[in-house]
Amino acid sequence: MTATAAGAAGVPAPRIDHPGLAAKLMSADDAARLIPHGAHIGMSGFTGAGHPKEVPAALARRIAVAREAGDPFTVGLWTGASTAPELDGALAAVDGVDLRMPYQSDPITRAKINAGQMDYVDLHLSHVAQAVWEGFFGPVDVALVEVAGITADGDLIPSSSVGNNKTWLDLADRVILEVNSWQPPELDGMHDIYYGTALPPNRRPVQILQAGDRIGVPHYHCPPEKVVAVVATHEPDRTTTFAPVDETSTRIAEHLIDFLTHEVERGRLPRTLLPIQSGVGNVANAVLANLDAAGFGPLTAYTEVIQDSMLALLRSGTISTASATALSLSDAGLADFLDNLGEYRRRIVLRSQEISNHPEVIRRLGCLAMNGMIEADIYGNVNSTHVMGSAIQNGIGGSGDFARNSYLSMFLSPSTAKRGAISTIVPMVSHVDHTEHDVHVIVTEQGLADLRGLAPRRRAARVIERCAHPDYRDALQDYVDRAARHAPARHTPHLLDEALGWHGRYLRTSDMRA
Amino acid sequence: MTATAAGAAGVPAPRIDHPGLAAKLMSADDAARLIPHGAHIGMSGFTGAGHPKEVPAALARRIAVAREAGDPFTVGLWTGASTAPELDGALAAVDGVDLRMPYQSDPITRAKINAGQMDYVDLHLSHVAQAVWEGFFGPVDVALVEVAGITADGDLIPSSSVGNNKTWLDLADRVILEVNSWQPPELDGMHDIYYGTALPPNRRPVQILQAGDRIGVPHYHCPPEKVVAVVATHEPDRTTTFAPVDETSTRIAEHLIDFLTHEVERGRLPRTLLPIQSGVGNVANAVLANLDAAGFGPLTAYTEVIQDSMLALLRSGTISTASATALSLSDAGLADFLDNLGEYRRRIVLRSQEISNHPEVIRRLGCLAMNGMIEADIYGNVNSTHVMGSAIQNGIGGSGDFARNSYLSMFLSPSTAKRGAISTIVPMVSHVDHTEHDVHVIVTEQGLADLRGLAPRRRAARVIERCAHPDYRDALQDYVDRAARHAPARHTPHLLDEALGWHGRYLRTSDMRA
Ligand SMILES: CC(C)(COP(=O)(O)OP(=O)(O)OC[C@H]1O[C@@H](n2cnc3c(N)ncnc32)[C@H](O)[C@@H]1OP(=O)(O)O)[C@@H](O)C(=O)NCCC(=O)NCCS
Ligand SMILES: CC(C)(COP(=O)(O)OP(=O)(O)OC[C@H]1O[C@@H](n2cnc3c(N)ncnc32)[C@H](O)[C@@H]1OP(=O)(O)O)[C@@H](O)C(=O)NCCC(=O)NCCS
Repeated sequence: MTATAAGAAGVPAPRIDHPGLAAKLMSADDAARLIPHGAHIGMSGFTGAGHPKEVPAALARRIAVAREAGDPFTVGLWTGASTAPELDGALAAVDGVDLRMPYQSDPITRAKINAGQMDYVDLHLSHVAQAVWEGFFGPVDVALVEVAGITADGDLIPSSSVGNNKTWLDLADRVILEVNSWQPPELDGMHDIYYGTALPPNRRPVQILQAGDRIGVPHYHCPPEKVVAVVATHEPDRTTTFAPVDETSTRIAEHLIDFLTHEVERGRLPRTLLPIQSGVGNVANAVLANLDAAGFGPLTAYTEVIQDSMLALLRSGTISTASATALSLSDAGLADFLDNLGEYRRRIVLRSQEISNHPEVIRRLGCLAMNGMIEADIYGNVNSTHVMGSAIQNGIGGSGDFARNSYLSMFLSPSTAKRGAISTIVPMVSHVDHTEHDVHVIVTEQGLADLRGLAPRRRAARVIERCAHPDYRDALQDYVDRAARHAPARHTPHLLDEALGWHGRYLRTSDMRA
Repeated sequence: MTATAAGAAGVPAPRIDHPGLAAKLMSADDAARLIPHGAHIGMSGFTGAGHPKEVPAALARRIAVAREAGDPFTVGLWTGASTAPELDGALAAVDGVDLRMPYQSDPITRAKINAGQMDYVDLHLSHVAQAVWEGFFGPVDVALVEVAGITADGDLIPSSSVGNNKTWLDLADRVILEVNSWQPPELDGMHDIYYGTALPPNRRPVQILQAGDRIGVPHYHCPPEKVVAVVATHEPDRTTTFAPVDETSTRIAEHLIDFLTHEVERGRLPRTLLPIQSGVGNVANAVLANLDAAGFGPLTAYTEVIQDSMLALLRSGTISTASATALSLSDAGLADFLDNLGEYRRRIVLRSQEISNHPEVIRRLGCLAMNGMIEADIYGNVNSTHVMGSAIQNGIGGSGDFARNSYLSMFLSPSTAKRGAISTIVPMVSHVDHTEHDVHVIVTEQGLADLRGLAPRRRAARVIERCAHPDYRDALQDYVDRAARHAPARHTPHLLDEALGWHGRYLRTSDMRA
C-alpha cells in the first residue's frame, strides 16, 4: 500500500502512505525556504547514516544567496553525531553554522571550528537529548529528519540511524521529513524507539536488562500537523572506508584479546564476556575482526555504531545480538547488510542515542568499552578530542558515557602518530577527556597496561614499560625520575614547566623527539 | 533484651543480643592480633562517622612493635571515605598503610602520600564496591566494621555511616566488629541496606524513584561464623568544625540561589527544585544555610553526607527527606541530632555509598550538584584533588558521580586561596577531575558563570568576567587574547608554554601574581 503521488518537484514518492503528509511533498529547495535565519535545527544523522540528503545542501545554497545579498544567515546545527559532506560539509563551506553540536568529523567543519569561525559544543552523547529537553540550548525550531517511510497513520519508519530524532521530532515547532526510498524497507522493525523518557522528577528506570531487550516501539510518532514539508529522496548513506587491518592494529587487538582471555581465566569475566562496546575507527574495527577467532561467545554488543566487523561477528554467531544507535558501514559492509537484512533485523536493535549510551544501562550491563584515543599520559589520563591542546579533532562522542560506566574501560591507540614524530604516550595530556579515575586499561601495539588498583607512580611505570614506543621510553622515564626528585609532591609528580613541553616541541619542530 | 555479658577484656558489652557473638568479645589488642601483615582491610567510616574507634589504634601499636623488631608490617586500608585521627592518622603515623583507598582527608595520611611513602588510589565513590567485587583490588581479607548493636539473630545494626560496609562484610574472610554503645540506639531503623546489587550480567534496575525511597533492609547480614572478634567500645564520632559562615561563603550562596531562582522563573526547574546534593566543606554548608530563606520547597536531598545545615533545613521543613550515606556533624549539630533523633529518623535515610552515589539514581532523580573545588580553568575544567598538579589534597570522592550525572553540575569556590596569592581561576588547571563536558556552572564570591551551551572561547569570556578575582582578571584576559592570536588553533586556544605557568610562578615565588 505505497502511495505513488508525485511531489511538488515531480519526484516519485514511494512509502508515504499517509495522504495528508503525501500532500506536503515539495522540493528540497522549497523545504529549505521554510528554515529561517537563526533557526536551531535538530537534524538526523549519525556517523554517515540516516542524515538528510538534500535539504541541507538546498539550505546551504539559500544561505550562500542570502550571504551574497549581504543578509546574515546562520543556523544552529544539532545532530546525532557526525554526518556527511552534503550536510556538515555543505553548511560549513558557506559559513552557515553558528553553533554545531554534539559531534562532528567533517574536514571543512573541523577547519572552520579551529579557525575560530564556528562555535562547537562537545557534549557526551548521552547528555544531548536531556540538555535540550531541559532548555539549555533554547528551542528546537526545526526538525529535519530522514525516515525510511511514512505509515498510513502518519507514523515514521526510522532510517539507518536513530540518534536524537525522537527528541527533535517531539520538541520541534516545525518538522521537515526526507523520505529516502534508497533506505531498504526491511529496516522497518529493527528499531526500538523508547517513549518512556521524562524529565526529573518523573523519570523511571530504563528497563533494559540485556543488550537485545526491546522496551519501545518501531516507529517515531509525530503529529502530522507539525510537518511542514516532505521531501522525497533516493540517495545512499555515506559509507566509511576502513583501512585494511594492518600489523599495528592486529598487535593492539592481540594484546587486548590476551588480556580478556586472562580475565576469563582468573574468573573476573564470564566466558561469554560482557556486552562489547567498540568505538569508531580503524583500530576498533580491527579488534572486532580478531574477536572471532578468540573462542569467546556467544557474545552480545551494546554499542554506538555497527561497523563492518560487527556484521561479521553477527554472521559467524560469535555475537548473538547487537544494540546500537546507527550503522557505519563500508561499501562492502553495506552490500552484505542489504543482502542479509532479514537475518540482521532479528539480531540488531537500533535505539535512540540517549538509550544506546545511557549511563544507567551501560553500568547495569557492565559493558567492555574499547575506544580510540589521541593520547594518554603516564598517569592514565586520556585525551580523545584535542590535537596539541587547542585543535578539535572530532569530539568526545560517547566515549565518556562508556568509559565512566563500563565494567572495563579500555583505550587503544598506536604508540606513535605522524610516522613516529608524535608519541601518543606523553608526560601530561594536552587536554583531558577521561580522567585517571575513568581509565582501566591502555593498549598500544607495544603492549597493554592494566592500571586497575594502581597509585599514580605505579601507573606511570607500567604505562612506560608496556605502552610507550621505544623511541620515547627513555625520555618518559627520565621525566618520571626527575619529577620524583624535583616535583613539589610525590603523589602525582609533575614538573609543570615541562609537562606539556613535548607538545611545545612538536609545534616548533614537527617532532616530539628531542 | 540487651546482653550484658562482659567481654574478654572485661568491658561491659551492651547491645550484643546474639550469644554466639557475645562470646567472641575481646579487647581491641586481641582483635588486632588477628590481622596479619599484608591484609587488605575493609573498614567502616565515612567523613568521621562510624569508623572503628579502637582496633585501628591497637593495630597501629602492633605495627610499631613489629617495625621495631625489624619485621615488615603494612596493610591495605580501604574505607568508605575519610575517617579520623585514631584511624587514618594512627596507621599513617606508623607507616602501616601500604595502599589507601578511596578517599582521605587526614593530615598525616596526606603528608605520607605526598612524600611518596604511601600509595593512594583515588576512585569515584560509586565505583569502589563494584571494583572490589570485580576483584580489581584482590581479596578483602578482613572487614573491620563499627556497628551500633547486634540483634538476637546476629544481624548488625549500622552505625552513623554506611559507606562500603555491606561489601566488606559480604566479601571478607574474617570479620571484626566494634560495637559502639556511644552510638544512639535510635539509629536503628534509619538505614536502608540494599541487598539487590549483583555483578553483571545479573544486575537489575535500582528501584529508587524518589530521594526517600527505601528498597532494602535496616540491618547488615553477616554469617556469625565469619566473625572472629567483637570489641565493645563507647566513643564518639569525630565531629567536624565548620567555619562561621563568612562573607565570601554568603556571597557564593547568594549567587547560587539567585541562579536557582532564575531557573525556576524560566520554567527550567520546578519550585520544589530537584534533589539537592551538597558536597563537603564550609562553602557547601553555607549554601545550605542560605537555602532556608530562599522560598523553595519542600525540597529533598539526595546526597553523600548530612552536615549541620542540612539538619536545620530538615527541622524547618524546607527539606522533607534527605538521603545520604553518612552523617558529618559538628558538636552542636550532633547534640541537635541526638535531641531530635526520633524526628530525624523518619526523615533521613542512610544507604550504602554505591547507592547514595549511584549514577543511575542520580541521573534519574536529576540532582542539583554543588561541590567545592581546588581550581577551575577558563574553559570549564575543574580540579578537585591536586594542589599544584602534584600533591593530593583529599580525593575526588563522590564529586564525579554527581557532576557527571546531575541535572545541574555546579562547582563552588572562593576566587582566591592563600590570602589572594592563588587564583582559583587559572588558564589551565594543573589536574583535571571534571572535564569541560561535566561542568555547567562555576561560582565564586565574584559571581556565577553559567557555561551551558557555550563553546570554549565563550566559556572563557564568561568565567573571566563573572568568576575571576579582579586581581587576576586582566592577566587571564591577556592570556586569552594572546592565545587567540598565537595558539595553533582557536577551538580551545592554549599557549602550552605558559598554560601552567601560573602554578610554576606560585611554586617559585609563593604568589601567582606576576
Ligand atoms: C581519538 C580518535 C580521533 C582516533 O581515531 P582513529 O581513527 O582510531 O585514529 P587515527 O590514528 O586515524 O587518528 C586520527 C587523526 O589524528 C591524528 N593523531 C592521532 N594521534 C595523535 C596525537 N597524539 N597527536 C596529534 N595527532 C594525532 C592522526 O595522525 C590522524 O590525523 P590525520 O587524519 O591528519 O591523519 C577517535 O577514536 C575519536 O574521535 N574518538 C572520540 C570519540 C569516540 O571515542 N567515539 C566512540 C565512542 S562510542
Ligand atoms: C576541593 C575541596 C578540597 C575544597 O574544600 P573546602 O573545605 O571547601 O576548601 P578550603 O577553601 O578550605 O581549601 C582546602 C585547602 O586547599 C587550599 N586550596 C584551595 N584552593 C586552592 C588552590 N587553588 N590551590 C592551592 N591550594 C588551594 C586551601 O588553602 C586549603 O588549604 P589549607 O588546608 O592549607 O588551609 C573539597 O571540596 C574536596 O575535597 N572536594 C573533593 C571531594 C568532593 O567534592 N566531595 C563531595 C562530593 S559528594
